[in-house]
Amino acid sequence: MKEKIRIGYIGLGRRGYAIIRDCLAQMKDVEFVTLCDQVPERMERAAKLLEENGKPRPTFTTDYKTILADPTIDAVFIMTGWNTHMEMTKASLLAGKYTGIEVGCAYDLQECFDLIDAYEQTKAPLMMLENCCYGRREMMALNILKQGLFGEIVHCRGGYLHYLPGTELLAETDPSHYRLTEYAQRNCEQYPTHELGPISKVLHINRGNRMMKLTSTASKARGLETYSERHLTSESSYPIQKYNQGDIVNTCITCAGGETILLTLDTTLPRAYYSRDFTVRGTLGMYMEERKVLFFEGMREEIANNEEEFFAKYDHPLHAEYTKLGEKAGHEGMDWLVCRAFVESVKRGVNTPIDAYDTVTWMSIAPLSEMSIQKGGAPVDIPDFTRGKWMRREPIVEGKYCLDDVCVDNETPIM
Amino acid sequence: MKEKIRIGYIGLGRRGYAIIRDCLAQMKDVEFVTLCDQVPERMERAAKLLEENGKPRPTFTTDYKTILADPTIDAVFIMTGWNTHMEMTKASLLAGKYTGIEVGCAYDLQECFDLIDAYEQTKAPLMMLENCCYGRREMMALNILKQGLFGEIVHCRGGYLHYLPGTELLAETDPSHYRLTEYAQRNCEQYPTHELGPISKVLHINRGNRMMKLTSTASKARGLETYSERHLTSESSYPIQKYNQGDIVNTCITCAGGETILLTLDTTLPRAYYSRDFTVRGTLGMYMEERKVLFFEGMREEIANNEEEFFAKYDHPLHAEYTKLGEKAGHEGMDWLVCRAFVESVKRGVNTPIDAYDTVTWMSIAPLSEMSIQKGGAPVDIPDFTRGKWMRREPIVEGKYCLDDVCVDNETPIM
Repeated sequence: MKEKIRIGYIGLGRRGYAIIRDCLAQMKDVEFVTLCDQVPERMERAAKLLEENGKPRPTFTTDYKTILADPTIDAVFIMTGWNTHMEMTKASLLAGKYTGIEVGCAYDLQECFDLIDAYEQTKAPLMMLENCCYGRREMMALNILKQGLFGEIVHCRGGYLHYLPGTELLAETDPSHYRLTEYAQRNCEQYPTHELGPISKVLHINRGNRMMKLTSTASKARGLETYSERHLTSESSYPIQKYNQGDIVNTCITCAGGETILLTLDTTLPRAYYSRDFTVRGTLGMYMEERKVLFFEGMREEIANNEEEFFAKYDHPLHAEYTKLGEKAGHEGMDWLVCRAFVESVKRGVNTPIDAYDTVTWMSIAPLSEMSIQKGGAPVDIPDFTRGKWMRREPIVEGKYCLDDVCVDNETPIM
Repeated sequence: MKEKIRIGYIGLGRRGYAIIRDCLAQMKDVEFVTLCDQVPERMERAAKLLEENGKPRPTFTTDYKTILADPTIDAVFIMTGWNTHMEMTKASLLAGKYTGIEVGCAYDLQECFDLIDAYEQTKAPLMMLENCCYGRREMMALNILKQGLFGEIVHCRGGYLHYLPGTELLAETDPSHYRLTEYAQRNCEQYPTHELGPISKVLHINRGNRMMKLTSTASKARGLETYSERHLTSESSYPIQKYNQGDIVNTCITCAGGETILLTLDTTLPRAYYSRDFTVRGTLGMYMEERKVLFFEGMREEIANNEEEFFAKYDHPLHAEYTKLGEKAGHEGMDWLVCRAFVESVKRGVNTPIDAYDTVTWMSIAPLSEMSIQKGGAPVDIPDFTRGKWMRREPIVEGKYCLDDVCVDNETPIM
């Protein structure tokens, strides 16, 4: 097992910087070899932060291939915008690097198959750094599931319910945000992984189960245009224009085991609160993150609402242990834990708890939902990116920083 | 305008009896001419109740056609099980009676067209007695909508989220409940009208808008079987068996105006609370009955949760007036108001605020969702039962007991 891992880090925008500041700069077993960004000031800012944290100053490059060509680098973080993920990830896998990528989806199915081909060629582990898989409530549900208290899982629901205009979209402070182009041009479930990640783990997707097909239905697109009409001035960086992205997109997925998943994208109409609406429904019980309700058959309702008591009883051991470290910044510990899961996998030389098959399956939802919407809501087959391996891949428990039911994969040779 | 209306009343089971007890027996302008049921004791019990309320004793019949043949009867209530609604309703319309029917769906599209044909032949008004259209929260949303505060409506959501095993289904106290057969044999959105009724009013369905198509996705069916295995004894009236009805059914509807509707049937997996999940999403604001949240763009979150303040500001005038009558039993006044809406329409000789087109459109959702599920979630066209009239039918405000934006229909001749 490695004592330290040597990383190359691509993309130092808002998210890329935050992950260094809140997580990686504080980890003694992570050494930054090279930073990559198109903006030198961003690299300088990150290097300064690393030095302040007692780490050696990394080298800089504007060409990510420099990182891939460095044989001393163990792992690559890809923290760029969605539109560059696929190309960089494929190159990183073909270079044999452990690859951690920020969340985001594919544009096309062929890109997904290309990633799988690259992975199967080199077996370099690929992990989407889906922090919500490590949310305290999501992991509590996983813990309860393991104890059998939900019974047989029948349905899960989740969504990205987050009003973006004025912050992520159409904000005058961030006039170049790449996401706006996606909303102007596409119409699909653009951003499903915060909910689909944890749901996939609950449903053992790619390890005993798989997603078979989906239908997507998009409402008309009126939110961004209305916001623009009401809030943009003549000095604004943005035009008042029409957008293609439907305000609400509902996607229904059917799994091999007969379970269904409902995903909702809800980001451009005014709403009162943020939620991922993470919901687990079994034959014996339910959990709803949004209402903070945990309920088992026959339970009295007032007990179902006592979240502190549930945490005391069912908190996932990983979160209990994490809490001892003291509160870290970054989405209530999710960022810290997802980074640790990746770093530990690299140190141990084992597959990542969210692996290439998970990553690519989740990334495929955007183009698949786009096809369904274009076909008027017709069902679209979800490819089996495991090529049949989902039936026999076993959940194996190992490693305290790994998602406990999906850790080391026996079949993947250690690099 | 009639001072009193003379009614025939078919079906004196749990629901039929409750509507008399909580509503009609207390109305001075309603006279019961004839009761109809297969069980004489039920008719006796209802007649006794009417006499206790100072009403003349009605006659009894076991053949509903006796009621239809009576020329002195103005209006017919059909309060029987789902499986007899269509036949009786058609006969009642052909007999030229004002017809009020308890909620329920069709089994087949042809039945729906038959009802429309019968209605168009006699123009006898038909009203589904969908009490949830008169819910305080649903009507508050309608009131806010009328004031333009939601902006343009983009999406609505609702569900029937009600755990039925042990009460409506598989209860030893009610071993003959007809609904269980529906759950054993069918797999569809069986019971959408509690949410779809109010949503249709918000979206002006059949009056300027229409539902164009739907897709339905059903989870596996495990809830009733699991409940049976755990709770039924050898002395039980029920076998332990498999059921066809998926535990969770999600239905996505697309409307002519580009709005979408999400309906959820959720009745057989343990859940913590009852909800109709009535949700309205517009370009300027949202309302969620489940969380009691009303929110307009830019509002502070703590204000969004103050339901009493919202009632004070936005309560529908009908509910404000109703409250002065003193609290009535029956689902927080909904039953009272829906009955008044029907009775007032009969007295005035005008069309009903929920009319034949609404009723039949809502009833068609069950067979349409069944088709979609059978076709693996394929989109299914929703017929235009108005045959084009939806484009020109105007909402007209009149009558204090009518749903205020959909009352008298100019095109329908007064009988």
